[in-house]
Amino acid sequence: MHNNKVAIIGLGLIGSSLGMALRNAPPVEPRATPLHITGYDQDRRATSTARGRLAIDREATTLADAVRDASLVVLATPVHEIPVLFAQLAPLLSEGVVLTDTASTKAQVCAWARDMLPAGLDFVGGHPMAGSEQSGPAAAAADLFAGAIYCLTPDTQTRPHALHTVEAMVQAAGAKPYYIDPHEHDAYVAGVSHLPMLLSATLVEAVSRSAAWKEMAPLAASGFRDVSRLAAGDPTMHRGICLSNREALLRWLTDTIGVLDELRATLEQEDAARHDAQLPHAQQVRHQWQHSAPNMRPGEDHYTQVPQVERGFLGLPRRPRKQRP
Amino acid sequence: MHNNKVAIIGLGLIGSSLGMALRNAPPVEPRATPLHITGYDQDRRATSTARGRLAIDREATTLADAVRDASLVVLATPVHEIPVLFAQLAPLLSEGVVLTDTASTKAQVCAWARDMLPAGLDFVGGHPMAGSEQSGPAAAAADLFAGAIYCLTPDTQTRPHALHTVEAMVQAAGAKPYYIDPHEHDAYVAGVSHLPMLLSATLVEAVSRSAAWKEMAPLAASGFRDVSRLAAGDPTMHRGICLSNREALLRWLTDTIGVLDELRATLEQEDAARHDAQLPHAQQVRHQWQHSAPNMRPGEDHYTQVPQVERGFLGLPRRPRKQRP
Repeated sequence: MHNNKVAIIGLGLIGSSLGMALRNAPPVEPRATPLHITGYDQDRRATSTARGRLAIDREATTLADAVRDASLVVLATPVHEIPVLFAQLAPLLSEGVVLTDTASTKAQVCAWARDMLPAGLDFVGGHPMAGSEQSGPAAAAADLFAGAIYCLTPDTQTRPHALHTVEAMVQAAGAKPYYIDPHEHDAYVAGVSHLPMLLSATLVEAVSRSAAWKEMAPLAASGFRDVSRLAAGDPTMHRGICLSNREALLRWLTDTIGVLDELRATLEQEDAARHDAQLPHAQQVRHQWQHSAPNMRPGEDHYTQVPQVERGFLGLPRRPRKQRP
Repeated sequence: MHNNKVAIIGLGLIGSSLGMALRNAPPVEPRATPLHITGYDQDRRATSTARGRLAIDREATTLADAVRDASLVVLATPVHEIPVLFAQLAPLLSEGVVLTDTASTKAQVCAWARDMLPAGLDFVGGHPMAGSEQSGPAAAAADLFAGAIYCLTPDTQTRPHALHTVEAMVQAAGAKPYYIDPHEHDAYVAGVSHLPMLLSATLVEAVSRSAAWKEMAPLAASGFRDVSRLAAGDPTMHRGICLSNREALLRWLTDTIGVLDELRATLEQEDAARHDAQLPHAQQVRHQWQHSAPNMRPGEDHYTQVPQVERGFLGLPRRPRKQRP
């Protein structure tokens, strides 16, 4: 990074939280120049709220104003806005600027970057595994990324300085970089993130189509609350995620319908023996997941001592390991 | 109730929490004889833990010992154990004793009661709309039922004194009695309670069948955690619930598979317009539910001032209304 200027485009939950986390990170050395973060959002109120919450140092009024002189540009918008931004940014950014994003799917974003950005710009796809069903800068928190896995999807063309810059940003935000192939990433998060979201919306949709929903709703308790929580998320963002990760999601949907068909057949046959296998298996898997150390990258528990990045604009003291809440 | 003796059979989460709530309830008048609660569980350790946590006054060593002289007997076991208990209790209980249960389905339990219990015994089916994915007396809490809706399913044969006794118990535990037809109850809770449980287990089953599950699991974050939470529940209890509420659950499963088929078709066709309808509708419904006053019986907000039961073994000061957490 050739200066200390960062631009964050999109000041929702993720962009504002990232700004807060970076502004709260301790500097590498006591007298290092602190970061200067410029923020921009199409919604002027979001920009202003983010500034009010000290997530950014300066409010930009245009995209060009936001990225002027920035060494690192972070696109923290929903996935469907990324290609529009790539087109607008391509003529604005000078050689050597590093670009990253935080969108929920990576294969399509990386393909857009290859197709739409000039060769002198370095793009590293990113996806922090942290979030909330709440949105907007008012819901942002400086510790949203603390201890979280942060997927990075460089390719063979990515130059080392770009990778170092983004990795240092991830660590400064308190998260743990995890390098993964973009297609692999998309298949995995489709299963553990987008499929749960669709199942959550499906539950709400199925019960609310009933004529008795008004009488049923008051009987819904904590079980319904938890399974339906993701349905409360922003539908425009969810739609974008689904459409940008179609193939992986379609495979998971087919598998899920298959499991539900099995359950229905079991129940139709009053087949207690098959129930004895299905539900306990799910319980056992959930139990193992729940009691595994959270936010451990594959193998991290056994093999690695994650090295700190040596160069980079900010250092990161290792945070204490969190328990899965 | 002709004396102050209550027997609680089954000292898991619900039975132990009920004991705690009743023992903590303020008496109707300062010098009223306090309740005396005898507890029994097939698992002696559960009985002993319940006594240690002051959920019961006395540990019984046999079912006969537990119900001796009791005016009110509460069966707080999983639904599949209810017919076994009815058969064992039928010769043990004398005329006028009131019997209730807390099982998750009501039509089959009420049918068992009609078929298996002698005419002089009064049975009132019950189901508190409160719980936790945790189980056992160690997870019990005196405020588990505070402000919760508590379904009661009497029929035309139920005598008034039985109804008054059970209603007073519900209010003493801090909950709100809600009278409902047992079949209606089962159809509703199948949608808002048992269907979420099956969807939760289905999610875990679908993703854990993947060869990549070990790599995916670390990327699972709070969305997966919430949607999969119910899969962590006791599979034996869940199996019993499913089998005792087959018809209602089968209808919901069919509806749910229908919604998932629609979602899959939408995604296959990249049909953004249909996404625009499905996900926002689910979000809107979830939002309405989330922001409705919790634990309000249909119409309660608008019309009723719930009358306190005048006779009964314990009075209940109205608890402050809780926010949906």
